[in-house]
Amino acid sequence: MTKVSPLAPAAFPSLPVVGGVRFATAKAGVKYKDRTDVMLAELAEGSVIAGTFTRSSTRSANVLDCEAKNGRPATGRAAILVNSGNSNAFTGRAGVEAVETLAAAVQTVTGIDRHRVFTSSTGVIGEPLPHDRIAAKLGELAQKLSVTGAEEAARAIMTTDTFPKGASTTIIVDGHPVTIMGIAKGSGMIAPDMGTMLVYLFTDARIAHGPLQATLRELTDRTFNAITVDSDTSTSDTLLMAATGASGVDVTRSAAFTKALHGVMLDLAKQVVRDGEGATKFVEVNVTGAADDADARKVAMSIANSPLVKTAIAGEDANWGRIVMAVGKSGARADRDRLSIRFGEIEVARDGWRAPDYSEEDASAYMKRQELEIGVDLGLGSGRSTVWTCDLTHGYIDINADYRS
Amino acid sequence: MTKVSPLAPAAFPSLPVVGGVRFATAKAGVKYKDRTDVMLAELAEGSVIAGTFTRSSTRSANVLDCEAKNGRPATGRAAILVNSGNSNAFTGRAGVEAVETLAAAVQTVTGIDRHRVFTSSTGVIGEPLPHDRIAAKLGELAQKLSVTGAEEAARAIMTTDTFPKGASTTIIVDGHPVTIMGIAKGSGMIAPDMGTMLVYLFTDARIAHGPLQATLRELTDRTFNAITVDSDTSTSDTLLMAATGASGVDVTRSAAFTKALHGVMLDLAKQVVRDGEGATKFVEVNVTGAADDADARKVAMSIANSPLVKTAIAGEDANWGRIVMAVGKSGARADRDRLSIRFGEIEVARDGWRAPDYSEEDASAYMKRQELEIGVDLGLGSGRSTVWTCDLTHGYIDINADYRS
Repeated sequence: MTKVSPLAPAAFPSLPVVGGVRFATAKAGVKYKDRTDVMLAELAEGSVIAGTFTRSSTRSANVLDCEAKNGRPATGRAAILVNSGNSNAFTGRAGVEAVETLAAAVQTVTGIDRHRVFTSSTGVIGEPLPHDRIAAKLGELAQKLSVTGAEEAARAIMTTDTFPKGASTTIIVDGHPVTIMGIAKGSGMIAPDMGTMLVYLFTDARIAHGPLQATLRELTDRTFNAITVDSDTSTSDTLLMAATGASGVDVTRSAAFTKALHGVMLDLAKQVVRDGEGATKFVEVNVTGAADDADARKVAMSIANSPLVKTAIAGEDANWGRIVMAVGKSGARADRDRLSIRFGEIEVARDGWRAPDYSEEDASAYMKRQELEIGVDLGLGSGRSTVWTCDLTHGYIDINADYRS
Repeated sequence: MTKVSPLAPAAFPSLPVVGGVRFATAKAGVKYKDRTDVMLAELAEGSVIAGTFTRSSTRSANVLDCEAKNGRPATGRAAILVNSGNSNAFTGRAGVEAVETLAAAVQTVTGIDRHRVFTSSTGVIGEPLPHDRIAAKLGELAQKLSVTGAEEAARAIMTTDTFPKGASTTIIVDGHPVTIMGIAKGSGMIAPDMGTMLVYLFTDARIAHGPLQATLRELTDRTFNAITVDSDTSTSDTLLMAATGASGVDVTRSAAFTKALHGVMLDLAKQVVRDGEGATKFVEVNVTGAADDADARKVAMSIANSPLVKTAIAGEDANWGRIVMAVGKSGARADRDRLSIRFGEIEVARDGWRAPDYSEEDASAYMKRQELEIGVDLGLGSGRSTVWTCDLTHGYIDINADYRS
C-alpha cells in the first residue's frame, strides 16, 4: 500500500450538493481489484458542458471524442463516465470503438443521448480497454446515482494518487447562492501545456457554452497549466465543466463567478502537486522582472522542471547555483548581472552575485520547511509568472520504476 | 566513496602522445582534499585553438573569456588551465577578475601570452573561486609538464564523474600519420544545445582556425549535443580543440580527418553518458520517419529526457506507453496511427496500436540488458535523429540531494 503524501490536506473537504448533478461509482475490475474504478456523473437537462484537453499529438480516443462533443447544443441530460486503471490511449481503432460502445451503452441504460456522454480513461497506456467490464456495471451505476456521491467519485478516478482531491465554494451572485464544486486526479505524468489530468467541475450556475469555454481556457493557463510534477505530459488530460443552471442564476458577466471558479481550480491544481509522486515539499516559483510574461513562464517552468533543482530541494540543500543554471538554460532573455534570487524572504543573490548579507545558515534552515517559495527577479521588465511544483525524491523512482508490474 | 559506474569501460585507454602537447596536474585544494584538481596543458608555438561553448544565458566568466579569445591569431604557444571543485559561475565581477588574474599568472610563470591562455572551471556554482590557491601551483605545474600526462589530466578535471574519460585515434593522411586525442569530464547537468561539459581535444594536424571551428560546430551537434543525462544545461560547458601542426600534415580538406574526429568526439560523448549520475543502463534512441531532422531530434530528446521513460528503463519495465506519451508531448509533427516503436529488434507497436505479435515476455527479457536501443518511426518523412542517454535511478537522487554538503 502506498503511504498518503505528507503534503496531503488533513481531510477530504465536505463537498456541497450541486443542483442537477448526481454521482455513482462501482467496482468494474478494469485493472485494480477490490476498489471502485468507475464513476458516472449524471447532469440535469440543459446542462452546459465545456472543457480543456491535452494538446499531446498522441492523445487518447476519449480525449478526441470529448473534443468532438464539446460545444454541441445543450439539450437533454448529459453524462460523464470515467474509469481508472486503463487510459485507452494508443489503442488504435479498438480504442475508438470502446468509447463509442460505452457511450451507446450509457444511452441504452439511462436514455441520455450518446452525443452528450463524455468519457475519460486513466491508467496504463497501450493496453486494450476491457470496456465490457465497465458496460456490465452501467445498470448498477444508474440505480445508485446520488447527489452526495462526489467524494466517492473522487476516489474512483484515482490511479497513483495517494488521496482524493475535491474543492468547492459558494458565492452570492445577484443576491442568490451559486455553488461551484470540483474533483480531480493526478500524481505523475503532470506537466504544463495542456488541459491537464482528469478534472471535473460542476456548478448550478447558468451560463452559455461560449463564455464558459472562454473562462475555462483562461483560468486553465493560471491553474492546471501552471503546475508540474515531472515535466511529462499525459495522453489523457481532460478538464470538463458542467453548468446545470439549477440555481437559475446567470453568471455570464459575473467577475465574482470567474474569481470563485479560479479559486476552486487553483485549489485542485495545488492538490495535484501535493500528491506529486514521491513529493515531500510543495514549492511555489515566482518569477518577476522578465521581458514579458512568456519569458517569465519559461524561466519558472525551467526551474520547476529541473531535476537538479528538485533533488536539491529534496535534500534540503540551499543550492541556489542550480537556480542560476535553470534560468540560463530556459531560453528566456536574461542578464546574469541583473539576476536576483530569494528563498522566501531570504535574499540569496543580487545583481549576478551572492547577496552581500547572505547567510548559508538561514537559507539552510528555510529549506527544512515543507512549503517553500523560490523567487527570481530578472531585472529586465514587468513580465511575471507563478508555477507550483514539488521535489524529486526516491519515492518518485520507487513508484515509476515499478508502475506496470 | 562513489562506486564506479557499471557502464564504465573496462580500463582507461592507452592514450598516444600528441606532438606539441604537454600536461601537468596538481593538488590545489580548491574544494577537494588529497586529489588533483588543477590541470595545465601547454600547446606548442602556432597551435590553432577552436571551441564550442554552452549557450546558457548565465554562462561562467571562463566561458565568456574563452569565447572572446576563440579565433585570435595563432602566434606563439598557448595554454589551457582547468580546475575542478568550483565553476566560477555566477560570481560577478570577482569571477571575471579570477580569470584575468589566472591568465596573467600563467603568462608570468610560462611566458605564454595571457590572450592565449584558456581557462575552465567546473564544480559548484556561485562560490568565489579561490584563484590564489591555483596560482600558487603554477610554478609546480610548469615544471612538471609532460607529453604523457593526458590520463592524469583527465582525472584532475573530474567532479561527480566516477571514471576519467579519454579517447584517441591515429589516421593516415597523404601517407603521414595524424593523431587525435581527447579527454572529457561530465556526469550530471548534462543536456543538449551547448558545446557541452569540459572536453579537450588535441591533434598534431595542421589546420586553420576557420575550417577547424566549422568542423567542430558540425560534429558537436552529432556528438556532445546529442547526449543527455538529466536535461539540465551547465553554465560552464566548454569544448576546446588544439591543433599543434606538429605532424606537418594539412587536414583542411581531409574527410578522413573529419570522420576520425567525429569518432573520438562520439566516443567521449558516450563515455559521459556512461558516467551519467546513477546510470545503470546505456540507451540509444533512434528516431526515423519524421517530417524533418529537427522534428526527429525533438522526439528523440523528449524520449531521452522523460523522467517516466527513464525510470521505466531503470525498473526494466517494457513500458512503451510512456514512449507514446513522450512522442505526444514533444511538439513534433506526429500521427498516432502511423507511429511504430521497437526495443532493439523487437517490434512493440505498429501503426498506432500494439504490434500483432508483440510478446511482453520478449520485451521484458530485452529490458534486462545493460545496453538498450529504442527505435521510433513516425511514418511521415525522412527526418532522423540519434541521441544517447541513461536511466534515472535512486543513485541520481542520492548524488544530487547531497552534492554541496
